[in-house]
Amino acid sequence: MSMTAKEYLESLRGLKLNLYLLGERVENWVDNPIIRPSINAVAMTYKLAHEPHHEGLATTDSTLTEKRTNRFNALFESTDDLVKKVKLQRLLGQRTACCFQRCVGMDAINALYSTTYEIDQAHGTEYHHRFREWLKYVQENDLCVSGAMTDVKGDRGAAPSEQADPDLFVHWVERRRDGITVRGAKAHQTGAANAHEMLIMPTLRMREADRDYAVSCAIPTDAQGVTLIYGRQPCDTRKLEEGDIDVGNYNFGGQEVLIILDDVFVPWDRVFMCGEIDFSAMLVERFAAYHRQSYGGCKAGIGDVLIGATASMADYNGIRRAAHVRDKLAEMIHLTETIHACGLACSYEGWRTLAGNYQANTLLANVCKLNVTRFPYELCRLAEDIAGGLLVTIPSEKDFRHPAIGKYIDKYLRGVPEVSTEARYRMLTLIHAMTFGLEAPSYRTESMHGAGSPQAQKIMIERETDMEHKQKLARSIAGIDAREDVLA
Amino acid sequence: MSMTAKEYLESLRGLKLNLYLLGERVENWVDNPIIRPSINAVAMTYKLAHEPHHEGLATTDSTLTEKRTNRFNALFESTDDLVKKVKLQRLLGQRTACCFQRCVGMDAINALYSTTYEIDQAHGTEYHHRFREWLKYVQENDLCVSGAMTDVKGDRGAAPSEQADPDLFVHWVERRRDGITVRGAKAHQTGAANAHEMLIMPTLRMREADRDYAVSCAIPTDAQGVTLIYGRQPCDTRKLEEGDIDVGNYNFGGQEVLIILDDVFVPWDRVFMCGEIDFSAMLVERFAAYHRQSYGGCKAGIGDVLIGATASMADYNGIRRAAHVRDKLAEMIHLTETIHACGLACSYEGWRTLAGNYQANTLLANVCKLNVTRFPYELCRLAEDIAGGLLVTIPSEKDFRHPAIGKYIDKYLRGVPEVSTEARYRMLTLIHAMTFGLEAPSYRTESMHGAGSPQAQKIMIERETDMEHKQKLARSIAGIDAREDVLA
Amino acid sequence: MSMTAKEYLESLRGLKLNLYLLGERVENWVDNPIIRPSINAVAMTYKLAHEPHHEGLATTDSTLTEKRTNRFNALFESTDDLVKKVKLQRLLGQRTACCFQRCVGMDAINALYSTTYEIDQAHGTEYHHRFREWLKYVQENDLCVSGAMTDVKGDRGAAPSEQADPDLFVHWVERRRDGITVRGAKAHQTGAANAHEMLIMPTLRMREADRDYAVSCAIPTDAQGVTLIYGRQPCDTRKLEEGDIDVGNYNFGGQEVLIILDDVFVPWDRVFMCGEIDFSAMLVERFAAYHRQSYGGCKAGIGDVLIGATASMADYNGIRRAAHVRDKLAEMIHLTETIHACGLACSYEGWRTLAGNYQANTLLANVCKLNVTRFPYELCRLAEDIAGGLLVTIPSEKDFRHPAIGKYIDKYLRGVPEVSTEARYRMLTLIHAMTFGLEAPSYRTESMHGAGSPQAQKIMIERETDMEHKQKLARSIAGIDAREDVLA
Amino acid sequence: MSMTAKEYLESLRGLKLNLYLLGERVENWVDNPIIRPSINAVAMTYKLAHEPHHEGLATTDSTLTEKRTNRFNALFESTDDLVKKVKLQRLLGQRTACCFQRCVGMDAINALYSTTYEIDQAHGTEYHHRFREWLKYVQENDLCVSGAMTDVKGDRGAAPSEQADPDLFVHWVERRRDGITVRGAKAHQTGAANAHEMLIMPTLRMREADRDYAVSCAIPTDAQGVTLIYGRQPCDTRKLEEGDIDVGNYNFGGQEVLIILDDVFVPWDRVFMCGEIDFSAMLVERFAAYHRQSYGGCKAGIGDVLIGATASMADYNGIRRAAHVRDKLAEMIHLTETIHACGLACSYEGWRTLAGNYQANTLLANVCKLNVTRFPYELCRLAEDIAGGLLVTIPSEKDFRHPAIGKYIDKYLRGVPEVSTEARYRMLTLIHAMTFGLEAPSYRTESMHGAGSPQAQKIMIERETDMEHKQKLARSIAGIDAREDVLA
Repeated sequence: MSMTAKEYLESLRGLKLNLYLLGERVENWVDNPIIRPSINAVAMTYKLAHEPHHEGLATTDSTLTEKRTNRFNALFESTDDLVKKVKLQRLLGQRTACCFQRCVGMDAINALYSTTYEIDQAHGTEYHHRFREWLKYVQENDLCVSGAMTDVKGDRGAAPSEQADPDLFVHWVERRRDGITVRGAKAHQTGAANAHEMLIMPTLRMREADRDYAVSCAIPTDAQGVTLIYGRQPCDTRKLEEGDIDVGNYNFGGQEVLIILDDVFVPWDRVFMCGEIDFSAMLVERFAAYHRQSYGGCKAGIGDVLIGATASMADYNGIRRAAHVRDKLAEMIHLTETIHACGLACSYEGWRTLAGNYQANTLLANVCKLNVTRFPYELCRLAEDIAGGLLVTIPSEKDFRHPAIGKYIDKYLRGVPEVSTEARYRMLTLIHAMTFGLEAPSYRTESMHGAGSPQAQKIMIERETDMEHKQKLARSIAGIDAREDVLA
Repeated sequence: MSMTAKEYLESLRGLKLNLYLLGERVENWVDNPIIRPSINAVAMTYKLAHEPHHEGLATTDSTLTEKRTNRFNALFESTDDLVKKVKLQRLLGQRTACCFQRCVGMDAINALYSTTYEIDQAHGTEYHHRFREWLKYVQENDLCVSGAMTDVKGDRGAAPSEQADPDLFVHWVERRRDGITVRGAKAHQTGAANAHEMLIMPTLRMREADRDYAVSCAIPTDAQGVTLIYGRQPCDTRKLEEGDIDVGNYNFGGQEVLIILDDVFVPWDRVFMCGEIDFSAMLVERFAAYHRQSYGGCKAGIGDVLIGATASMADYNGIRRAAHVRDKLAEMIHLTETIHACGLACSYEGWRTLAGNYQANTLLANVCKLNVTRFPYELCRLAEDIAGGLLVTIPSEKDFRHPAIGKYIDKYLRGVPEVSTEARYRMLTLIHAMTFGLEAPSYRTESMHGAGSPQAQKIMIERETDMEHKQKLARSIAGIDAREDVLA
Repeated sequence: MSMTAKEYLESLRGLKLNLYLLGERVENWVDNPIIRPSINAVAMTYKLAHEPHHEGLATTDSTLTEKRTNRFNALFESTDDLVKKVKLQRLLGQRTACCFQRCVGMDAINALYSTTYEIDQAHGTEYHHRFREWLKYVQENDLCVSGAMTDVKGDRGAAPSEQADPDLFVHWVERRRDGITVRGAKAHQTGAANAHEMLIMPTLRMREADRDYAVSCAIPTDAQGVTLIYGRQPCDTRKLEEGDIDVGNYNFGGQEVLIILDDVFVPWDRVFMCGEIDFSAMLVERFAAYHRQSYGGCKAGIGDVLIGATASMADYNGIRRAAHVRDKLAEMIHLTETIHACGLACSYEGWRTLAGNYQANTLLANVCKLNVTRFPYELCRLAEDIAGGLLVTIPSEKDFRHPAIGKYIDKYLRGVPEVSTEARYRMLTLIHAMTFGLEAPSYRTESMHGAGSPQAQKIMIERETDMEHKQKLARSIAGIDAREDVLA
Repeated sequence: MSMTAKEYLESLRGLKLNLYLLGERVENWVDNPIIRPSINAVAMTYKLAHEPHHEGLATTDSTLTEKRTNRFNALFESTDDLVKKVKLQRLLGQRTACCFQRCVGMDAINALYSTTYEIDQAHGTEYHHRFREWLKYVQENDLCVSGAMTDVKGDRGAAPSEQADPDLFVHWVERRRDGITVRGAKAHQTGAANAHEMLIMPTLRMREADRDYAVSCAIPTDAQGVTLIYGRQPCDTRKLEEGDIDVGNYNFGGQEVLIILDDVFVPWDRVFMCGEIDFSAMLVERFAAYHRQSYGGCKAGIGDVLIGATASMADYNGIRRAAHVRDKLAEMIHLTETIHACGLACSYEGWRTLAGNYQANTLLANVCKLNVTRFPYELCRLAEDIAGGLLVTIPSEKDFRHPAIGKYIDKYLRGVPEVSTEARYRMLTLIHAMTFGLEAPSYRTESMHGAGSPQAQKIMIERETDMEHKQKLARSIAGIDAREDVLA
């Protein structure tokens, strides 16, 4: 069953989320103006699956169900699948200009698929089978899955079991015949309120004392004991205002949620790791590699919109042909394509896991993400340079529509005469949304912290490099080791 | 007469501003929660003048009135005055963490003082005398002056007289026996609604056809025909919400206004330039040099707060001693001090105008500002790196205060156990305000566009350099010209 | 026939080059100590072809001869061939730590292959057939081919036909029944003195008046009228000194030659373009795209050696575990892998020409090269940081071997006690060679100017981007064009 | 007595240096072509003292001798002296385009002056008096003093007393009635062979076990037991070749020497610290602050020459007005002036020591130097971009002068027709010298490592910052501490 965007949206109405927003419990969150744009962004992933010319990108044949499946719920069965993932993400970034939230689930699915396989090999457990069954259910119902990894972490200098409060990392508090009970919280949960299921995973390497924290399982978002608290985003209440200009991107937006797990019961057939501390790091690193690859897609797509908006503002201001403007636009393209090139390279250079699905090249995926922690910030800076100060000084749409003063604004905030003041307004607020406002968390903060902060990438880059090999090359060239005889 | 902060605030109540905000005419703008923080920021410039240990920075002896005068209304009578200006600005940036809005007026006063002197020398006019009289009045009444330079500009590729609409640059539409009538608009007017007076100046070099646009004059902010339209800022309506956390910087904020001049009459004794196109560029460049110097003060001060906030977040997260965190904090300091060093250097290297007041070194002031268009963006990026993703995912204060879910937030969003969750909340929202929210225009966009966009500085740096001298040095060393005989 | 490295070297002795070096005609250039390392570097491309485990990279099946052929003389018949090219280049960079010189020829061969095909389609000429025949001869004899594109150019502001001296771009001076006579010079000719053949190509887009300059042909390096003048490289005469340390990389080096063509006759079967100005730009751009791709391989390989050398110096100095050193090494890896990722991405995303061979993706190849104009410089800076000042203050090997003072050097220039002073010496001089000395042109200047200077990449990046598409995306999101209805 | 440049040069002949260069003892080093340019560079500091219009910069009144003294031997008696120092250094950088070597001595003199004063205060010693006497002697004889701080250091992870070889830091081996005997080596000693005296200083903070290493004293460069070994520089032997083009900067150059102290006896009146480990760090930090200030002068001056040379190459190539070239030249100026601004700022903000001389502001001096470790590298990169690949591919001067092939070079390597090929040659080799060759150590490596490597500046920047104050500012704004009441 493949849902349309509309069916997906309707399916959400069937959930009984315990969701809070701005201090209030939200019953009908589907039609809430603050939340709806984030649902629309997810809905786009369903819509694309029905667009014939994007079918190859947006869907694939599942070897589990032997049916056509949305790529966001599919296994990567080849490097070609990895490449298509990245290209699909770029396309979605271009169509929404924000985070469309489903990548975490897709990446979690693939990381758990191969890790459960290897846990079973090592420990004689049956996680992989359970996981395949759950995944079949997800694919067959075309559900939206949210991946839940990041714990709230308390004191970053202390391990899970060393925290003042034992709940600062998700752990099981009871192990029963029929399942386990879990407690804790997951922070920065992208799109959690728009998902049917969430996949809980540990967030870091575990040691013996942390055994209770090595837990992975699937939980319906409306399960008993789950509370979702919606995170504030810059300018969020503009969505409650009249008009559609000031918000910048009226249709689409990201979503970050704080998930509280207050003694949630999970039956065994939904538990995929429970105490195997030796596989916690593998799960984290495989997920991270996938997700660092992902940014080589989506952030390039969002960047495309920002570049287009910036070029448009240059047009509207009459400076598009100025040499420094052309140079800055070319630089924006260059940085965006560098990100995408890294996303493609780590995909093409992927490798097959023991379970049979494919991982992106770990080193290059980390390189990709480290560039993402830098370049979108420079793109924002360049966009702000070209767009001009009006970005943060333009009066409200209400002033623009005002019977007495609207005429002044229309007269005085016009750029080149051929373009309406309203068009200039809209382009300015779009850039504002991406650099300061509602989309800035998607484009800036997520680029920085999503899939791990820059230092995490630095560490992986160091670890994934065979430095002894490079040193050997140097010693040979330097003549410390025997020099290579080229004529030999 | 030297006003206290309170007296300044009360003095505003006497003005009859025609001010619009979010589509409505605001009668009592002094107590409007969106506007008040910006008034507080200006009020700080009055407060400091009464703090004995800052008296030397915040006030000076006026040679016009022979009384102690607020530095913001004073002439720079030495390089020492220029240095004190920059140090005062840093102090104010530290105390408000935002734009305190009075620098434009101070810089406009000094630029007009010397330019009117030279116009009179060249044209036999009496602008300088008029200006001195007006300035005496300002000093004696301790008024707040706003400098109004930036025209709305329409098509950037066309001169004032070539625009489709002749009003896109401020110009006079009538010249009468008793004065002139001016029409047009000034955009991005920092603190205009918090000022008693505004100083109109042309915004660029003029040519013969632009004669009507070469106009400078002083206008009370509540004069007949003046309309002020308040610019939106990111997260502005958070100031209307209950609570004091989400807004980040509860007390202080910047202000940008669109000023409409709809046939405003100005008597001759308030007119300081009227058609002298040959002095338009001088006025612009002198003002720009002062204002590019200014950023070497205020942005360093705001940067100090951001550095302190970032270090605090590192403390609260338990990562302050991590090598990469220390390195990033040191980098933030380094960039901030580089900005300040440039601000100091251009001040110490200032020069005396014919009128007797001092200008900052033009080349170094432009170098200062060009660094400002880059470094605060990198500071924001580093602050976001260290602060963590919670910056844009933290729930609202209302959730935190909520009887049912507040306890979850308090429990789970705590960092190191010694620091309260509320403190961490407050520090996060402060950094949010500076990088995304209400203070971001002060710290980011103003750094980019205030006193001219980066390309303007590049042009001035090129123009202010004696390249032929440098080429001569190279030719001599290279032996193309005669080499220097060191033993001669 | 596949030559071994030794056979290649011997084959050079059969050439009668008219070669000048340091003001003297060189008869036996093969054994000249300044030139020999550059021959060794080329020889490595022959050696690899005989290493069984690199056979797949270093050779390929030729569809022309139906024999195994050195990849440097082969057509790219798939994107896989493009990827292998880049990986082969990285391997060679690692083995030589310098420019191995044959890429220009390989890239020229492929660019001419497809361009001659399209010229023939458009003009009914027979260049493609001639070119295939010549290429068969090259493949069958396993010759080394040098690509000769860069004209000396005189005044960069003037077209070929507008120069004060008509010979500043290569052109034909006579067109005869049996062939043409060409005159002019080609500058910066990498490895020209180590090649058997050179492929002359025009260097820029031509206009009607430049018809005589649109010329491409193959010329043996020892043809009548050809003079080769060897370019100086930093520290070149160190190769004439006793000892093997100071030179840094004793075995390998690059080579740049100024080629003079003083009325050289070329028979028609070696002429591949002669006046078709409408295809000059295509040839240049196709060659440039290939060659910009190339740098994603070789410069990553050379970078590997520099990283290894830098890590070794950190070991020898006892600072390898210092946090800032680890951070800088990780940064060096990150930048190097970013370059390589771009090289891989443009290869995987290649496209098939009408003639049937494959081109790298033009946009991404330019993005690759633009990064190359930046990152190796930063790698050098970081290497110099970690290596320490001794890099340019260490005494000569002769001092180190000196009976009286050698003991002082041995005693005092030791780092950690486990490593000999000589090893430290060798590692320092290797880094010196790569950052200042004999390999610096290969790693720095070639990265900047090879395959076109950065501005050329900026222009191509601008040209290859569908900006209207990006603007359309922005207009739709902004609501200027109709917004996408996600539920439709 | 104030020496002329010629007298200085002659005075060197009176020294009996034990100096080695390229494996040989050099008797007449004054006329040695490799060494002479470095002597010329020092001689320029003597020449300037006799140029009437630079007298104020180059000389000053000594309060010790009450005579006019060369600034390089003078105490900084005001912030004005500090500013003049930096401006003098810029002037000398412009006139020599390399390191003129005397700053280390000047900075050592001033650091020892104040430190000996404070040692005496704390320990009741008489170092300060001795030092004043020695300084009087130096001033009266107008001697050239070399500051010798950097030990060879062996394993960087071990303290002086922990090294495998106890001599890897300079220490005294005997304490006698009449003086001490010192042993060890000093590396990277700028201009040591051109000095009459050297001032030995410890290189880092000492602990109890390192007492024998806390030693400072003055030693004549030709004292018994001193051996000087000349460091190699890139392209050094070009100075031995015929012609004056290839060397790039024919007249001037830097010098780095390895000093061996093989049981050198120093009488007590030349000993200025001997075991006072508690003052080792003070001496190092004061010297470092002075020397980090220095780079804000000299590197700006050398940068001026590079900028001039680059602009000239743009002229010669006919691309000077291209937008990207102008932008890059403006960037080069911007970076150079930023360095100088920091040098000026730390000088103007200097402070008076207890002994009465002035120190540069420590924080800003470190900020200055940290910029210097970055910007000259970018300047080199931009210079290489604009100069073109010919920088490292141009044939030798001998080829250019060659009867048979010289005409080809003259014809083909001409740029715009108005400029001779020889001028272009000379400008290219000058840029080559500064970026790769003989001046590259002065402009690149010294910028990196002179006065301490970048990490040393990061540490000082961290230490010199009152972070608690910044955190307090943030806490107040955030409302964690009480918010400031602006109306109070």
